[in-house]
Amino acid sequence: MTSPKGIGIIAALCMVTAGCAVGHQAAPGRTDPPRDVSAITAAPLVVRQEGSFFVGGTTLHSHSLASIQPVAPEGSITVGQMYVQYQIPLHARENPIVFVHGCCLTGKTWETTPDGRMGWNEFFTRAGFATYVVDQPWRGRSATDISPLNAARLGAKAADLPPVFAASHESAWTLFRFGPTWPAAFADERFPLSAIDALWAQMVPDWTKSFQGINPTVRPLATLAARLGHAIIVSHSQSGIYPFQAATLQPEAIAGIIAIEPGACPPADPLPAPFRSIPILIVFGDHVIESPHWAPKQAQCRTFAQAVQKSGGNATLLSLPDAGIHGNTHMMMQDLNSLEIANLLIAWIEKNMAAARAAAP
Amino acid sequence: MTSPKGIGIIAALCMVTAGCAVGHQAAPGRTDPPRDVSAITAAPLVVRQEGSFFVGGTTLHSHSLASIQPVAPEGSITVGQMYVQYQIPLHARENPIVFVHGCCLTGKTWETTPDGRMGWNEFFTRAGFATYVVDQPWRGRSATDISPLNAARLGAKAADLPPVFAASHESAWTLFRFGPTWPAAFADERFPLSAIDALWAQMVPDWTKSFQGINPTVRPLATLAARLGHAIIVSHSQSGIYPFQAATLQPEAIAGIIAIEPGACPPADPLPAPFRSIPILIVFGDHVIESPHWAPKQAQCRTFAQAVQKSGGNATLLSLPDAGIHGNTHMMMQDLNSLEIANLLIAWIEKNMAAARAAAP
Repeated sequence: MTSPKGIGIIAALCMVTAGCAVGHQAAPGRTDPPRDVSAITAAPLVVRQEGSFFVGGTTLHSHSLASIQPVAPEGSITVGQMYVQYQIPLHARENPIVFVHGCCLTGKTWETTPDGRMGWNEFFTRAGFATYVVDQPWRGRSATDISPLNAARLGAKAADLPPVFAASHESAWTLFRFGPTWPAAFADERFPLSAIDALWAQMVPDWTKSFQGINPTVRPLATLAARLGHAIIVSHSQSGIYPFQAATLQPEAIAGIIAIEPGACPPADPLPAPFRSIPILIVFGDHVIESPHWAPKQAQCRTFAQAVQKSGGNATLLSLPDAGIHGNTHMMMQDLNSLEIANLLIAWIEKNMAAARAAAP
Repeated sequence: MTSPKGIGIIAALCMVTAGCAVGHQAAPGRTDPPRDVSAITAAPLVVRQEGSFFVGGTTLHSHSLASIQPVAPEGSITVGQMYVQYQIPLHARENPIVFVHGCCLTGKTWETTPDGRMGWNEFFTRAGFATYVVDQPWRGRSATDISPLNAARLGAKAADLPPVFAASHESAWTLFRFGPTWPAAFADERFPLSAIDALWAQMVPDWTKSFQGINPTVRPLATLAARLGHAIIVSHSQSGIYPFQAATLQPEAIAGIIAIEPGACPPADPLPAPFRSIPILIVFGDHVIESPHWAPKQAQCRTFAQAVQKSGGNATLLSLPDAGIHGNTHMMMQDLNSLEIANLLIAWIEKNMAAARAAAP
């Protein structure tokens, strides 16, 4: 499975750890042995602190909060806030990890996989990182404004309803690259298809096409990163561009960006300034070049990564099949080898955060 | 603050524990000392297992999943599923706790309070219970069906839109009994009003008025309880009747019901059969008799509890001010004395689950 080229990339990623196991950041005067996936998942999880909070949000006044008695149609609600759930292990490493889900999904993306295995949120916590899982504003536990629906019920033009949409199972099948067309699967695909109903249960309506300008996730994401300090933002798909946009708003706030199959990367020319100083890893799975949707996105991200490198920055596009890891889908955080992928990310974090610390003035 | 009558009720609730501290269920051959709130909140949390999953849900086919290019309008989606997030401590007690939120809120209700104190979900986990926090179907991380909105955008009648509603800050202020009318507060109220914006951020639109018949939360709740075994369901407000309805569907599945200010209790006459064998605690806060909305609900629940007692069952209506605890609002899981209230519930659980075990054939 591992091509000669792949061995090189994986070896480079794993150089700072033993056998691609996850090294635990050593406290001064102390050396932790590297740990492997099964050791991390088997031990009890010791949590110093956990909880949830919201970032951002504005108060708006509406005359159509309801269209039935006895609920008052007029009043104030709060929208635009971003729900954040976090867990800090007993001895946390320097870099907190923020996980931002993609289209038509919520923070559930990063939790227990559809077939019941450990999610990336818990795995990273067990590997020593404080983890922060968000629901994008207008999604999941982050409120929407339902006023236009009641306004239409009460007589406003239906054409003024927001274009909220839901991705169907059939369209997600192809977009998530479980197979070339629904319901055919790629022979080597690694998503736990026997549990696919539990993925369909995760999907929720998406309001992103009703926003003008910058997505409402970007600003609270920048605020969260600034509040945490040294944060590494892990994005997925639709949210791929958000950490880059947040870094433009708060150039000092973000210590690293890991983009899992981003829907878009920043432009390569002109290259926005912050991206020369933030370590960036962009990961794509398998069967990308067969996908009319994803092939151009990977190509655009590769051009961006090359431009960053050329400008003296640090950006890597990791194509898993080029590295000898085959069959990964768009939902690689839920694929059968999801924790191996997580381990690759942790190895990249260890190597690149250490390098960034060494290079700091 | 504690009336003579109150001392009696609190003493009865606390009889099985020392000074109302939370006793830890002793493993055979081992005696744990009772623990107090600050001991529980200060120690690191040791988790054996955590994660999330969905219960229930059905596939539906729609022709209006979207009303904009390039999203396919036709296809299948999954709705009706209930999101469940859980945490199991290292040495879990016999009874898992299921937390079900109320109107216009999500599972966030039970997490970190608006002013940043520990939520009931974490406190119960630290006190030794496996905890399960749900998002009601059609709320939070549990999907909605947005098809009618797109159908209206595409030409269907706006009158056919579902009556989704949002509770305004102003109406919630009175309903949650922070004060008699917005923005006046009761002099003795215990909600952390300085952080009220963080409560407003928790509120989301509510679809419940668009359902015919039994609420879609009831069936997955019964399924979850049956799957867990010996579960105690803690409801709030709108969800108050759901555990009772779930118990009617699965009479053996539910070990206890704790209803925090339920919107409704079951009828007293005829009294449904399961409620003679399930220990039931119904809790109301302060200023209920001044509330035209809540006074009749408390009266109805008192009549129900009396009917259960008369039939040989075990149901208690605990009015906190009658027990000498003043100033609690409808959001008592977030009030400044929230963990003291939680401790009362744990004392009730310990006493009544022990009694149920002793009485079992």
